[in-house]
Amino acid sequence: MDLRRTRIAEIISSEEIGARFTVMGWVRTRRDSKGGLSFIEVNDGSCLSGLQVIAEEKLPNYLDEIVKIQTGASIMATGILVASPGKGQKVELRADEIKVLGWADPAEYPLQKKRHSFEFLRTIAHLRPRTNTFGAVARVRNTMSRAIHAFFQERGFLYIHTPIITGSDCEGAGEMFKVTAFDLDQIPKKDGQIDFAEDFFAGPARLTVSGQLEAEIYALAMGDVYTFGPTFRAEDSNTSRHLAEFWMVEPEMAFCDLDGDVALAVDFLKYIFSYVLENCKEDLLLFNRFIDSSVIKTLEDLISQEFKFITYTEGIETLSRATEKFEFPVSWGSDLQSEHERYLCEKVFKRPIVMVDYPKEIKPFYMKVNQDGKTVRAMDVLVPKIGEIIGGSQREDDYDTLLGRIKETGLNPDDYWWYLELRKFGSAPHAGFGLGFDRLIQFVTGMPNIRDVIPFPRTPGNMSF
Amino acid sequence: MDLRRTRIAEIISSEEIGARFTVMGWVRTRRDSKGGLSFIEVNDGSCLSGLQVIAEEKLPNYLDEIVKIQTGASIMATGILVASPGKGQKVELRADEIKVLGWADPAEYPLQKKRHSFEFLRTIAHLRPRTNTFGAVARVRNTMSRAIHAFFQERGFLYIHTPIITGSDCEGAGEMFKVTAFDLDQIPKKDGQIDFAEDFFAGPARLTVSGQLEAEIYALAMGDVYTFGPTFRAEDSNTSRHLAEFWMVEPEMAFCDLDGDVALAVDFLKYIFSYVLENCKEDLLLFNRFIDSSVIKTLEDLISQEFKFITYTEGIETLSRATEKFEFPVSWGSDLQSEHERYLCEKVFKRPIVMVDYPKEIKPFYMKVNQDGKTVRAMDVLVPKIGEIIGGSQREDDYDTLLGRIKETGLNPDDYWWYLELRKFGSAPHAGFGLGFDRLIQFVTGMPNIRDVIPFPRTPGNMSF
Repeated sequence: MDLRRTRIAEIISSEEIGARFTVMGWVRTRRDSKGGLSFIEVNDGSCLSGLQVIAEEKLPNYLDEIVKIQTGASIMATGILVASPGKGQKVELRADEIKVLGWADPAEYPLQKKRHSFEFLRTIAHLRPRTNTFGAVARVRNTMSRAIHAFFQERGFLYIHTPIITGSDCEGAGEMFKVTAFDLDQIPKKDGQIDFAEDFFAGPARLTVSGQLEAEIYALAMGDVYTFGPTFRAEDSNTSRHLAEFWMVEPEMAFCDLDGDVALAVDFLKYIFSYVLENCKEDLLLFNRFIDSSVIKTLEDLISQEFKFITYTEGIETLSRATEKFEFPVSWGSDLQSEHERYLCEKVFKRPIVMVDYPKEIKPFYMKVNQDGKTVRAMDVLVPKIGEIIGGSQREDDYDTLLGRIKETGLNPDDYWWYLELRKFGSAPHAGFGLGFDRLIQFVTGMPNIRDVIPFPRTPGNMSF
Repeated sequence: MDLRRTRIAEIISSEEIGARFTVMGWVRTRRDSKGGLSFIEVNDGSCLSGLQVIAEEKLPNYLDEIVKIQTGASIMATGILVASPGKGQKVELRADEIKVLGWADPAEYPLQKKRHSFEFLRTIAHLRPRTNTFGAVARVRNTMSRAIHAFFQERGFLYIHTPIITGSDCEGAGEMFKVTAFDLDQIPKKDGQIDFAEDFFAGPARLTVSGQLEAEIYALAMGDVYTFGPTFRAEDSNTSRHLAEFWMVEPEMAFCDLDGDVALAVDFLKYIFSYVLENCKEDLLLFNRFIDSSVIKTLEDLISQEFKFITYTEGIETLSRATEKFEFPVSWGSDLQSEHERYLCEKVFKRPIVMVDYPKEIKPFYMKVNQDGKTVRAMDVLVPKIGEIIGGSQREDDYDTLLGRIKETGLNPDDYWWYLELRKFGSAPHAGFGLGFDRLIQFVTGMPNIRDVIPFPRTPGNMSF
């Protein structure tokens, strides 16, 4: 069988009336007119729009097959592209041949032409990418991934693959999953303790929570680098914003301070949002229409607005003066909640905010301590609707200060011997940030639940598919 | 401190004699001439070449600092680019200011100007990217990653993030690591069995060995997709070709048969090899000179040669007639070893080979069974020096045949309910392949040990850094 085909996205944008095309895809609907004509809407995933295929009753398999084609079947159709007299499409395909590649029994196929709840669609994650919404999510996710690589590669950053399995518990950023090759029923013990020397890696292994510390190694040799890969948290957070497995983007730059870090973060956001608006407009219009009518405006605002720069201390002062009732109290030294971040963005400054110089007590050990001894060179980028979208910092590059911070926070310096050595041999100012990719996709699409922006979500109690 | 700098790659390629630049990087060597002049070679990771910085004794910190700068220190140097009278470089920087950003005590810094063994460098993986070889590996790895994304994105494939944590043991492709949030010292039991209902995912969880089955889901909705991410094997293979954690590329195409799959694989290899030759020539020349003097010729041959197409049966016949002594015997029905694959490529056909139609017994259940009932639509791409570089197949798209194969191979159909359903609802011919990214980098660079082509290798007994 000849499987050469043209993608629907290409056919539609070609507008080559009179040209002959073969299309292959999945049937969304079929309706028959009284005049012995069937209209079959085919979608192949290349774009949101389907292609209307016209089947006339003179086709040899019209009665045997074509009028039995149902939602979900896969077909091949060959014919001439003609201008469409109907509403909703400019072109349609007048078929002279239609083959059914795979049937879908309407009594069994769970995706019928009606709206299904996202909760239900999660139970059929093997079929949900065939719906308009999840097809659009897949295209937006792909485009945002491409935008991320394009942004960094154009600027000479190297893509680094940091490890997933790790022996260190890193920055203490959260609960970690354990990895083992032990038979869990027969874990070897020695003197009453688990004998990790017998395990695959000869020690307790975990799934990484961040590639940052390893990215710093490469930044302090190659200059500018970034990671883009899966990270993990074993936290029992059953919310619409948490995944146990999620993708992170983490650039890290040598010879860069907090100002350079902030500048990169702002450029980065403006770049990727412009990119998705330019390359996924049809899909974003779908989200704007059916999911959240402010997504496009929010992205456009972020691209055009100047970001407001304030210190954490200024932020706290502003919040203390607010008449707004907050669920969580505000005081210097406590972490901001997203209600506070959103209030500052949406109500006070009416634009995105870069907040810097957080109290060292609420930030990890590796952030560079300011001259005041109380705050660190941290920065968070806050945006409307979600609050923090990026968190970063200049890193502590002074050996003694870093060693002090490690001890102060109760960590074991021996576990960080190589991280410390980076400050002993050719240390340099360096900085970086992290961005949770799945929350970014939530922000861009307006999808309310993070489980619906990743193909196969992993959450407490769920690792289906 | 002003941290604006120009990367050395850019300075060298600009050849802007007379222009003023600031360079920041790590010192490789410093030597002093009798005439009160120091030559400092600085590398910033942006390219293999360093930049020679000339420091004259009239600089205010010449005696206090500059003559104390040693290998490994990080410095900032500002000056005018001049034509170099010396050998080995076209341009050099005549500095009017040099600042030391971070010292490196030569009594402690382990990377002195001499050749270190790769074994030793593995023990200081936090410093090895500062060597010529490992810097070059990092740039080649980045460029190959970019090539992979460019190839698929140009062809309209969507990048899909398949899950790392999985509840299925997939294709039985190998031993899997277990993932748990249990305290390994107190695993809850119920009726004498591990009570997995109490674990994070409410069942036994593992690290994926392949994203293929999930990629098929997306192919059968979006058309053409690919994955590029980490995969795992808990196999106790302490060889120069095995990693417990490695990166895989897995394209998957709907409306594609074995011929289409083979065509894509050949195009793909030619594209990425051309890409790296074009974008990493300086680094490849290093590998060609110091690691394996055939790497560039091998890549050029692969790009220009036509691949030879043979069936497995023809391959076995050819091998049976060979006068060569093989370590492993050859007979129809047994797996080919790399000695056989290399013999066919290097001695018999003298070019890359695409071998198809393998016995079904030695291939996984999901490969499409041929009409003969004995072989499957599998394909391996074999290349000189390593043998198999790509393995793929057309997938079984017939529900009943697939169900039979699942049972035949002793798997439980219930574990594959969604995979089976893809053949029930709008099934379509589809195909894909997998390529081990780290072995690809080994092939391109000639590096003898796979531990030296990934930043932080995970192998039996080792998960350092």
